Amino acid sequence: MDRHLSGPQLARLLDLPTGARPYYRALAEAVRTLILDGRLPVRVRMPAERHLAAALGVSRTTVTTAYDRLRERGYLDSRQGAGSWTALPDPGALGVDNPWIASADDGLLPLHIAAPSATALLPDAVAAATDAYPRYGLGMGYDPLGVPALRAAIAERYGARGVPTRPEQILVTCGAQQAIHLLMTLLGGAGDPIVVESPTYPHALDAARLRGARLVPVGIQDDGWHLDLLEGALRQSAARLAYLIPDFHNPVGRLMDDAARAALAATARRYDATVLVDESWAELAIDEVPAAAPLAAYDTDGRVISVGSASKLWWGGLRIGWVRATAALVRRLAVLRSAMDIAAPLFEQLMVVHLMERVEEGRAERRRGMGASRAALVEALRAALPGWEFTPPPGGGALWVRLDAPVATPLADAAAARGVRLAPGPWFGVDGTLERYLRLPFTLPPDALREGVRALAEAHASGLATPRGGPARAPLMPSL
Amino acid sequence: MDRHLSGPQLARLLDLPTGARPYYRALAEAVRTLILDGRLPVRVRMPAERHLAAALGVSRTTVTTAYDRLRERGYLDSRQGAGSWTALPDPGALGVDNPWIASADDGLLPLHIAAPSATALLPDAVAAATDAYPRYGLGMGYDPLGVPALRAAIAERYGARGVPTRPEQILVTCGAQQAIHLLMTLLGGAGDPIVVESPTYPHALDAARLRGARLVPVGIQDDGWHLDLLEGALRQSAARLAYLIPDFHNPVGRLMDDAARAALAATARRYDATVLVDESWAELAIDEVPAAAPLAAYDTDGRVISVGSASKLWWGGLRIGWVRATAALVRRLAVLRSAMDIAAPLFEQLMVVHLMERVEEGRAERRRGMGASRAALVEALRAALPGWEFTPPPGGGALWVRLDAPVATPLADAAAARGVRLAPGPWFGVDGTLERYLRLPFTLPPDALREGVRALAEAHASGLATPRGGPARAPLMPSL
Repeated sequence: MDRHLSGPQLARLLDLPTGARPYYRALAEAVRTLILDGRLPVRVRMPAERHLAAALGVSRTTVTTAYDRLRERGYLDSRQGAGSWTALPDPGALGVDNPWIASADDGLLPLHIAAPSATALLPDAVAAATDAYPRYGLGMGYDPLGVPALRAAIAERYGARGVPTRPEQILVTCGAQQAIHLLMTLLGGAGDPIVVESPTYPHALDAARLRGARLVPVGIQDDGWHLDLLEGALRQSAARLAYLIPDFHNPVGRLMDDAARAALAATARRYDATVLVDESWAELAIDEVPAAAPLAAYDTDGRVISVGSASKLWWGGLRIGWVRATAALVRRLAVLRSAMDIAAPLFEQLMVVHLMERVEEGRAERRRGMGASRAALVEALRAALPGWEFTPPPGGGALWVRLDAPVATPLADAAAARGVRLAPGPWFGVDGTLERYLRLPFTLPPDALREGVRALAEAHASGLATPRGGPARAPLMPSL
Repeated sequence: MDRHLSGPQLARLLDLPTGARPYYRALAEAVRTLILDGRLPVRVRMPAERHLAAALGVSRTTVTTAYDRLRERGYLDSRQGAGSWTALPDPGALGVDNPWIASADDGLLPLHIAAPSATALLPDAVAAATDAYPRYGLGMGYDPLGVPALRAAIAERYGARGVPTRPEQILVTCGAQQAIHLLMTLLGGAGDPIVVESPTYPHALDAARLRGARLVPVGIQDDGWHLDLLEGALRQSAARLAYLIPDFHNPVGRLMDDAARAALAATARRYDATVLVDESWAELAIDEVPAAAPLAAYDTDGRVISVGSASKLWWGGLRIGWVRATAALVRRLAVLRSAMDIAAPLFEQLMVVHLMERVEEGRAERRRGMGASRAALVEALRAALPGWEFTPPPGGGALWVRLDAPVATPLADAAAARGVRLAPGPWFGVDGTLERYLRLPFTLPPDALREGVRALAEAHASGLATPRGGPARAPLMPSL
């Protein structure tokens, strides 16, 4: 710990672009680059904040903020009163500039996430929950199964969608992600195969990796599911669990038709597999589509488990999801979750009780809003990037775009430099392939999407090199 | 599946107490007893609900409700339109009459849980969150690290308690349980030893078992911690992680003094162990106690990690907790949690921002309320059960009672028959011992506690047999 840098020494090493804005970020990036390049070794003591501020001619607050940023990302270690040393973040992906925990306030346009803004019904839902809340205040306030009024409302909604359901078949969770995590934890043993679509929802892959599962990908492309491939994967891998998204697939956008649903349920029965169906987007049709019954409607023996979410239809800030399964499995899941987080938040559960009563209003609101956003995105893309190919989906929240070259990762880097955060194809795959694809959500307002496409076109025009082989990005979640 | 029972046949088998209330529960219990006794074999088809209702002379709804209850608990299997068959729940503890997911509406007085009712400040917190909420509605609504305003408020509170803390050292979780689960998942490898107090908080044991950890218990009794034992456990087990509750220990109630804190931190350093400090009860002093700084105040190198909770000070319905650790560890935890449930609920985070601003009001409210409840419980117990021994703790939420015989489990069964649910000692231990102990929370109002003690005295007077060896109760959570 003897090596140290003075303020002027570090200022000379830094090669800060003039007029970089915000300055603290440019400063932090420049230090990070020095460390990653090896020009600034690790375990070197950084100059005191006031000395570097003086050497650079900026305020001390600017330097403090930059140091905080570096510390957060693992590039500085600090001890109270003793100073800061250069460091490298953990070698695993965990914690290193992970896109999912990118700060909302980093100023980048978040085109990497498909998360609509809050429903206009939110204030009414707050008012309804405020009214109902005091009735629960004398109790302990939590129920690992979910508040009875919400379990009943969710069960009723399944009934309306064509699957008669009793409230005891419903477990209320902290978002669909907890439902997926619980189910993969309970049903998937470490090392067991899990069949997944490729591409698919990245956080489901994270949950499976966390469980130590072996991922068995089955391709799904623009023309939808090939059930023979799915059947082959189940047969060859002997997987007992499949995670599928038949309703406005994320990211591909396809809706599985009734015939395919019946065949899928029969295939699962034949191979004695359980199907975990992610219905997060199921209520978000934009176009008039043939009504497809939930996959559970084709189930005869409790092997189709449905996962639902308030996040897409109403808002991700609610953190309410659910499982529909047999009553016995629901109780096993509730015991498991009582070791993880005890219960879902009550106020938000009561909000969702209200929103469920007005589910068609919410669906109509999304149909209008996301329809307009989809149209804007499609039009802007076709004008600015005519070489990119996609089929606008009949619902859901994103376009799955085939680029004109396998450059999704360098494109994402170039877009970030232009203020837009992207989700390159490899995020949605099992093995770092899909470098020719990009998911572009239409969950932001039309103007923001047009702005995003302008930046994309600039990034695209900047000349992107194809990555030199290997997975574009390590799996985000190591198995524990 | 050929065996079946007619309504009159089952009605003859049932031996229902006359005037049992509620009838559906008595009916379900009677069927469950028949199944457990073997008088009703498994895989026997139950009579149709309307036939049993006719045979018993009760409404069909009553029978439906009883069947639902049996189904929920795993004693019936049903297929839509095909009827119901007797069954036995899974052999593991998971899902079988698990006390943590006992229905809040089963009518039993919940003396098994130490969970105060909601703070009187709750309506103000709802109003404040309602005001702040719209500012977030245009965004995606979630941040795996927690909403910045709350991270700042929690950091500031640590500062006021004597540990300077930056907001990036705070992770907001879905309750303290998620914080414990995340930390044990990240820091404890499968098979690794974790030092815990015995007795301790049962859900922490569940989280450790879920991780596959090896539990190394260190006794703590009425006279508090014996640091030499703790040191011996660390040395002999080579554990790198300890889970401890120095602040109004749950269930023992002791508060660790400053000298012991300093020694504990030094011991952890000597054995290179990380200490996970559960501060769920830290703000709940009832008596005037010497101000003890958080254990983290004695930390010099990031090995003391604090977990806090909104549940006890304000309300369990809030499902907000937090971790205080190094900024780098906080980011690693946030990535891990993004595979588990993405983020904590926003509205409740905003409520806690308000409650943090008025933390001393909340503490004073609890001091008054829990002080009165503690006094009522102590007085009622000393009058009705003078053979039981306990030392009223200076804060926290429960008495740790030494019974006059090792009968906690049969006492809990006898009390349940008299309308009171208890937490017998073995719940808080690692190996089914502690049968001579009972945790009695004083989180209910004085009148409810007096009623509970009357039922306890009756149960105690009913003549309890000492259990015939072996753990009184299997671990609630199997390792996965």
